[in-house]
Amino acid sequence: MAAVCGQYQKVCLSETQLDFPGQPYSVSVLKVGYCVPQTDGSFRADGTITLIRGVMDILVDTGGPWNREFLLQSLKRRGLEPGDLQLVVGTHGHSDHIGNLNLFPSALTIVGYDISEGDIYRPNQLAEGQIYTVDDHVCVVPTPGHTGQDVSVQVEGTSVGTVLVAGDLFEGWSDDNSWKDLSMNSAVQEVSRQKALNTADVIIPGHGLPF
Amino acid sequence: MAAVCGQYQKVCLSETQLDFPGQPYSVSVLKVGYCVPQTDGSFRADGTITLIRGVMDILVDTGGPWNREFLLQSLKRRGLEPGDLQLVVGTHGHSDHIGNLNLFPSALTIVGYDISEGDIYRPNQLAEGQIYTVDDHVCVVPTPGHTGQDVSVQVEGTSVGTVLVAGDLFEGWSDDNSWKDLSMNSAVQEVSRQKALNTADVIIPGHGLPF
Repeated sequence: MAAVCGQYQKVCLSETQLDFPGQPYSVSVLKVGYCVPQTDGSFRADGTITLIRGVMDILVDTGGPWNREFLLQSLKRRGLEPGDLQLVVGTHGHSDHIGNLNLFPSALTIVGYDISEGDIYRPNQLAEGQIYTVDDHVCVVPTPGHTGQDVSVQVEGTSVGTVLVAGDLFEGWSDDNSWKDLSMNSAVQEVSRQKALNTADVIIPGHGLPF
Repeated sequence: MAAVCGQYQKVCLSETQLDFPGQPYSVSVLKVGYCVPQTDGSFRADGTITLIRGVMDILVDTGGPWNREFLLQSLKRRGLEPGDLQLVVGTHGHSDHIGNLNLFPSALTIVGYDISEGDIYRPNQLAEGQIYTVDDHVCVVPTPGHTGQDVSVQVEGTSVGTVLVAGDLFEGWSDDNSWKDLSMNSAVQEVSRQKALNTADVIIPGHGLPF
């Protein structure tokens, strides 16, 4: 199945396609986010958690506050302790994405447009639309709209090409009926979405399978 | 010393005035937030952490990710375990305010305009400007501007009257030279600030002493 997003087509990948090997970086979805409406008007929701391994180990989003043990176990199964993560990115400051930042107090931490090491907050140009370069293969891209300060993490050179870990820039593969309702600025987000679709070969969304 | 804020005057309180007893709720600042520019252009920053005790125990902001042990010890000194907190509020989704949400996975959690219990996200009208009433003495008030989805917690009936735990609606008592630089929408924030100054007898700001 193919969804037409602007002039670009993306295909929803299968539930088993959560690992994207590569050199020097591989990308693995540790938890597929979800957002399921309930009959009483509430939603069950959790944000996608993604691990990027290579020259350094990077976590993108930490899920909701209830994921502490899940995260510890999930990292442990991959031979990692929380202290091994050198960079932790929260794509935006919603509770289903940044619930476990305190597992990584010594990591370089990026939440939205704030870049910090411990209590030192570093000047940066994310708010001016500038990319924050981690190295030749990984960068943090401002992708506002869902909130005013969203970022995505772009990984180049995997076996599927460029992977964008996009937070709630995309709810999921087929989100035409949902993303605008959750957007603080849908016009701005639409621009961010089109740029992402132009650039990425695979997008890892905040509440659904990669596509 | 008195600062003229619009037509209202507020006085900066002393460093020892961090507890505001009351019935049925008392308010205590557990950590006074700070934001100190460094010579290299960075800032050392942490958000104010506030405990409200009474009919229920409520924490407003959890500080940065490095505060896990501080929070555990600070609560313990007051005879509290993390599981005793029934409501945890993150005034907004910046890392120096919501770094420790996973200490309280069973609490009702409000971060910005999202209200959740575990992974259940409840519908609410904060985004429409409506107050979320906790009980007759405590409510959560939308106070946008610093981000698009800030909230403050208002406590009525303390010995000093109405206390507003305001997050980064105010950086501190005398913040005329700083708050606008950190605001995503200073016109909206100015309206929120004036309403707060009209309503509250004491304001607990995000990065300074109560006033």
